[in-house]
Amino acid sequence: MPYINVKITREGVTREQKRRIIGEMTQVLVDVLGKDPRTTFVVIDEVELDDWGIGGVPVPEFRKSGA
Amino acid sequence: MPYINVKITREGVTREQKRRIIGEMTQVLVDVLGKDPRTTFVVIDEVELDDWGIGGVPVPEFRKSGA
Amino acid sequence: MPYINVKITREGVTREQKRRIIGEMTQVLVDVLGKDPRTTFVVIDEVELDDWGIGGVPVPEFRKSGA
Amino acid sequence: MPYINVKITREGVTREQKRRIIGEMTQVLVDVLGKDPRTTFVVIDEVELDDWGIGGVPVPEFRKSGA
Amino acid sequence: MPYINVKITREGVTREQKRRIIGEMTQVLVDVLGKDPRTTFVVIDEVELDDWGIGGVPVPEFRKSGA
Amino acid sequence: MPYINVKITREGVTREQKRRIIGEMTQVLVDVLGKDPRTTFVVIDEVELDDWGIGGVPVPEFRKSGA
Repeated sequence: MPYINVKITREGVTREQKRRIIGEMTQVLVDVLGKDPRTTFVVIDEVELDDWGIGGVPVPEFRKSGA
Repeated sequence: MPYINVKITREGVTREQKRRIIGEMTQVLVDVLGKDPRTTFVVIDEVELDDWGIGGVPVPEFRKSGA
Repeated sequence: MPYINVKITREGVTREQKRRIIGEMTQVLVDVLGKDPRTTFVVIDEVELDDWGIGGVPVPEFRKSGA
Repeated sequence: MPYINVKITREGVTREQKRRIIGEMTQVLVDVLGKDPRTTFVVIDEVELDDWGIGGVPVPEFRKSGA
Repeated sequence: MPYINVKITREGVTREQKRRIIGEMTQVLVDVLGKDPRTTFVVIDEVELDDWGIGGVPVPEFRKSGA
Repeated sequence: MPYINVKITREGVTREQKRRIIGEMTQVLVDVLGKDPRTTFVVIDEVELDDWGIGGVPVPEFRKSGA
């Protein structure tokens, strides 16, 4: 029954990387909680860099500041 | 006051189908809880097939496996 | 594959009402999009009145204002 | 540690406006709760008008109805 | 139409602080985007410290590590 | 920058299991995307069985049906 939502910045994540994230995150709940993979959802949301803020500024600016 | 978020795979859902989902889901809360439609939000998120995992693999692969 | 999240204020919603919401919301996606109920999740979140804001104030205050 | 998710309709919000939203929303939690901006996330999701329902209809229709 | 979800750790946030968060976050979208407060939702979710991870460990452990 | 939200049914998950979920899910994004654990959030939400629907009915009923 688990639902796992993974929000990451849109920075060229490949299909194969997404496939690994889906597989490995599902496996964590199989290993730790014995969940059934067939009723475990993983949804990946990619977010534009300008739409993600940290330190009170958008990510590109935060990274430039070297914080 | 309700907020309903509907995540579905991006597979050609039409405007009319979205309109029906909005109307009928709102109506469920009007019928069951007597909620006011004017302060009931429905937000539909369409998710790419490769971004949705079930059974530990992306949806296209899960469907091919016939699981 | 759909995931439906329903956020409502915590105001004495009964088990039977939750059961109806689950059933009827699932049915909307069966009717409109032909989705399989066995891979359709509905998650209901009840939110305390003081934790839900509308009109810039918590719900109890908004309702008192008769807005 | 806070995570703020802001869902708004996709209606031409500019980069500068997003930057202000990120900065000012982060500042609210700095002011009110003394949170550290460096571990405060703000994620903005823009939603298509047809994907957002209010009053049981999509936003464009709701606005036309003058409700 | 905006929906703002604020996830914070459960650490004794008072009703008055929640009221300020609701009011000030709503005001940000009034100021920046000219949104109508009456159709702006703010939902605050308080999360137990053990249910929030950063640095790969629960918050209490992260804080003890002085990271 | 990632934000991982894990929704699971409330069925006696222990602190140690939550700690493992936080650590191992963070590690997936370190391994696959090279993300920095210090700016990776994991939030676990436990959901009452009656608040989670699958197959159009609450989880307890779904399990009894042996589906």
